[in-house]
Amino acid sequence: MEIARPYLLFLGDVHDALAAKTALGIVDWRPEWCLGQLRLPGCAADAKIPDMTIEAAVAAGVKTMVVGVVNAGGVLPEHWISTIVAALEAGLDVATGLHVRLASIPAIAEAAAKTGRKLHDVRHTSERFATGKGTKRPGLRLLTVGTDCSVGKKYTALALEREMRARGLAADFRATGQTGVFISGRGAAIDAVVADFISGAVEWIAPAAAPSHWDVVEGQGSLFHPSFAGVSLGLLHGAQPDAFVICHEPTRSKMRGVEHPLPTISEVIEATIAMGKLTNPGIRPVGIAINTEHLSDADARSVCESAARLHALPASDPVRFGVGPIVDRLLELFPAG
Amino acid sequence: MEIARPYLLFLGDVHDALAAKTALGIVDWRPEWCLGQLRLPGCAADAKIPDMTIEAAVAAGVKTMVVGVVNAGGVLPEHWISTIVAALEAGLDVATGLHVRLASIPAIAEAAAKTGRKLHDVRHTSERFATGKGTKRPGLRLLTVGTDCSVGKKYTALALEREMRARGLAADFRATGQTGVFISGRGAAIDAVVADFISGAVEWIAPAAAPSHWDVVEGQGSLFHPSFAGVSLGLLHGAQPDAFVICHEPTRSKMRGVEHPLPTISEVIEATIAMGKLTNPGIRPVGIAINTEHLSDADARSVCESAARLHALPASDPVRFGVGPIVDRLLELFPAG
Repeated sequence: MEIARPYLLFLGDVHDALAAKTALGIVDWRPEWCLGQLRLPGCAADAKIPDMTIEAAVAAGVKTMVVGVVNAGGVLPEHWISTIVAALEAGLDVATGLHVRLASIPAIAEAAAKTGRKLHDVRHTSERFATGKGTKRPGLRLLTVGTDCSVGKKYTALALEREMRARGLAADFRATGQTGVFISGRGAAIDAVVADFISGAVEWIAPAAAPSHWDVVEGQGSLFHPSFAGVSLGLLHGAQPDAFVICHEPTRSKMRGVEHPLPTISEVIEATIAMGKLTNPGIRPVGIAINTEHLSDADARSVCESAARLHALPASDPVRFGVGPIVDRLLELFPAG
Repeated sequence: MEIARPYLLFLGDVHDALAAKTALGIVDWRPEWCLGQLRLPGCAADAKIPDMTIEAAVAAGVKTMVVGVVNAGGVLPEHWISTIVAALEAGLDVATGLHVRLASIPAIAEAAAKTGRKLHDVRHTSERFATGKGTKRPGLRLLTVGTDCSVGKKYTALALEREMRARGLAADFRATGQTGVFISGRGAAIDAVVADFISGAVEWIAPAAAPSHWDVVEGQGSLFHPSFAGVSLGLLHGAQPDAFVICHEPTRSKMRGVEHPLPTISEVIEATIAMGKLTNPGIRPVGIAINTEHLSDADARSVCESAARLHALPASDPVRFGVGPIVDRLLELFPAG
């Protein structure tokens, strides 16, 4: 899906900042797309951008109101419906990452039909994908892979995009998860795609490009996660990456939601190359992104240094230390990029 | 989904036997469930079971009318609708493997609602699955895997079930594709499941069982197919097989629908063990099923013999030579089974 920009962020009346994580992520990475926020009385979150009415947003050129919050159970509270209807009637598209589909709410479906505005349910996908072809396409691609779910694959991809752009490279973050779709304005939540079309969806998300252009593709799950490895493999085959960065959280003992221990970074490197070479025989690792949020500065530094030594790859925490060394390595290996 | 038995097979007025492949497959493997066939004037297919009216089927105890045919484009011809409505009104459930959902046709939806009968769209799934847990569950499992799509994984699994039952083993075929679901009366087309739930769906399809019970799980795709490997990996992790049989078609030069060459049998064995050990560290190959339909008898024999020697595994064509040697090996390796 393609979401028209710029955005007005709707925060509703959520009870804490965590519930507005999606909105805060969009503002962090795409401040230029976020013209204002709309909050209902009692809202405890603040995206630190101007408060704005729907009318003011339309006047400022906003195209889409993004419901940038999650709610218990993913449902849409009754008292948000009138604001969404008002946005549609004022000429805005509306996008959400909630479980419930906007069009399943009669008042919203009716307003969208009447005004001809678009409803984007980022967690679902109505896009009709082809099955993946696996044919090598032009352009360079980097994929973030993980030793587990939720270890920083999206953050790392976005940090790489920012650093690569800062160095003058043509680089685009490619979203495969719902928050990422809002941040890139395009993409699909591939965990919501029908199983037969995983790699095909990724071929659409990261299409053929100029030979020196980098797609920085957001990874999902882990090849070693018993719940989601199928998604990770389809994503790997569809992305056909030239380069990959391994993301890791060193204090975690079990994989998220299951009883399995985390694989080692070496196991992830080995499996990613073994399986990834099916669609890109040249695939190779270019760095390790370590999420050190639960470590002291000294421990964080030491963990990164030992991982770098062990795997002969640059290793850094993208939040704490940046991704400079990883982009250095990328430029060494792909000077044409 | 669970489809109530026995069946009346509806063949419509299809123009050739190929269009009735699903019905013929059900009769081949489950003749005892198929009490009769219902054909419209002009039908060119014949399942070689008694022709039967809906009224006679109800009197004979039939529970479900299976639309056991495919039609160009997967649509339901207008003139079949009245027969389906009549079946519902006579008290039968109706099941199809067509692309179109039965409930999307107003007359059918209405008749089902009025009579309280079930509509099964085997190609779709409305079952709510959990995400896979990857925890080892009791019971023994065998999975058929492939060097490509459409190399005989379903046939091999069904032939193994038949041979294992003939030797007194407790064995159940577990369906993961639409024809298989009709043959087992239960299962799900896992290529139609939402990507996040592939392995979880397979955990439901092949649930915990008695320690010496064998589930013979129908494989899908190939770990080396760039379109479908994600499905194959989720299936492998969900099935957590103790044993696997590699299915292969030796005359094929490219994988189905793509430009990739077929992997070797050795590559499939190696990758299946490497990835499968995540949910079953004891996973091992027990045989090779070779589809020799395009070979002479002498060539077929020679291909099987050389594969057996090369891989130190029994190798046979299930159609031509049966699966006896593979079940022999299974019993050697799992005497308790």
